[in-house]
Amino acid sequence: MATPSDEAGAVGPRCHQRSVAMLDIPFPPFGAFLGSLGLLCVALVGAWCQHWRGGFSLDGGSRTFNWHPVLMVTGLVVLYGAAALVYRVPKTWSGPKLPWKLLHGGLALGAFVLTVLGLAAVFRFHNSNGTPNMYSLHSWMGLGTVLLFSCQWAVGFGTFLLPWAPAWLRQLYKPIHVFFGSTILMLSVASCVSGINEKLFFSLKNGTTQYKLLPAEAVFANTLGILILLFGVLVVGALARPSWKRPDSDSLDSRQPLLSAER
Amino acid sequence: MATPSDEAGAVGPRCHQRSVAMLDIPFPPFGAFLGSLGLLCVALVGAWCQHWRGGFSLDGGSRTFNWHPVLMVTGLVVLYGAAALVYRVPKTWSGPKLPWKLLHGGLALGAFVLTVLGLAAVFRFHNSNGTPNMYSLHSWMGLGTVLLFSCQWAVGFGTFLLPWAPAWLRQLYKPIHVFFGSTILMLSVASCVSGINEKLFFSLKNGTTQYKLLPAEAVFANTLGILILLFGVLVVGALARPSWKRPDSDSLDSRQPLLSAER
Repeated sequence: MATPSDEAGAVGPRCHQRSVAMLDIPFPPFGAFLGSLGLLCVALVGAWCQHWRGGFSLDGGSRTFNWHPVLMVTGLVVLYGAAALVYRVPKTWSGPKLPWKLLHGGLALGAFVLTVLGLAAVFRFHNSNGTPNMYSLHSWMGLGTVLLFSCQWAVGFGTFLLPWAPAWLRQLYKPIHVFFGSTILMLSVASCVSGINEKLFFSLKNGTTQYKLLPAEAVFANTLGILILLFGVLVVGALARPSWKRPDSDSLDSRQPLLSAER
Repeated sequence: MATPSDEAGAVGPRCHQRSVAMLDIPFPPFGAFLGSLGLLCVALVGAWCQHWRGGFSLDGGSRTFNWHPVLMVTGLVVLYGAAALVYRVPKTWSGPKLPWKLLHGGLALGAFVLTVLGLAAVFRFHNSNGTPNMYSLHSWMGLGTVLLFSCQWAVGFGTFLLPWAPAWLRQLYKPIHVFFGSTILMLSVASCVSGINEKLFFSLKNGTTQYKLLPAEAVFANTLGILILLFGVLVVGALARPSWKRPDSDSLDSRQPLLSAER
């Protein structure tokens, strides 16, 4: 006798196919959405520092500190995310791979440069004001993330771009590079939200509306933090989605000609 | 003429095979390590609250608050991580699936109960002290994580444990459940580290050694935060590792008998 489950199963496959087809959007429009979300995060962190925190300067004061959140969100989150997603664009799956490798490595290098400038901004602010560096959990996590990122870039460069790296080493290292690629983004996002939280507790107290009374600045910056989280989760999800990966990426990568032999 | 790359390639495959064999450890010893790391996190957060923050009570004061970090780390991170990893144990891949489903859902339910008690602790502390609830980015992110977790559990229960859920629905929902499973853990960990950071700024100021002077408590709690991050990254990595997934898990899951038909 047919059970209700069986009856549902009878109409299920058609419904399932329609639902799967709806869920199976191609990467490019999703990538465009992620790009817009990333730019929104950059615009919001800039607006926060400009409108509520006094803007930007290089004098070592709090306006020098303001470069820190802007450069970290722009470099370590948004540009890093763009670099990570290069190989999800279907156009990168055919033809010579070297231009895409250079784009991936170049965007990551740009992200790294912005990140180092972002660190320089907070160290200069601390040193100018006699504040110790590297005491908070935010700073430990953030610097650890940047150190991991520097290792990731250097080992990625040495393995995937230098012509003398053997194919077996590339094949061996690739899943490690992919794992740390997503991990570093997760750590970047966790560092950003803990930093925004910390900055709001520092700034919204004496002489201004306290954080706990949830003034407009707090709502604005909390929303920024949630959008950064959303960006990070969606990028990590896009990286993990099987149908957006290059077909047979593992075997292709290990068989690809070395840089010296590529067009 | 043989290039250096070719020569490396000639000895490479053997070296590669040895290296891959070294990296390809089975899940159980890694799971035991993760279990130890999780228990260490629980022990350390308990020791922090007991030794430096005055211990535990139910009187609505700061010792009531202390239940919050302990229950969140224990429930939303460690027990949640254990629930997520159930299907990585090879023993779960054969025989009736229902007991493992019940273990997965039961551990997740236990994690959820501890999480709700952890929320109750901080709300009671705030309400007893006239402090507003839900103003910080930590609180927004944390409550959002718990709401996602409640949806994940309820929809997971309705889809995978209720006997009338059709197989096509299970197959459709499974990748969504898996994606949110890792996402919620990432958000939990980000919530925990921002909470520890926030708590240290609150606690280490007037009347005690300031956070920025990095007293022993700060080193201890920062280390706890880094270990929680490490636990979260390793669990998410273990969940993503292809060789630790149940062979043909997607097709098996969609073909599995419904609960009512299972032994």
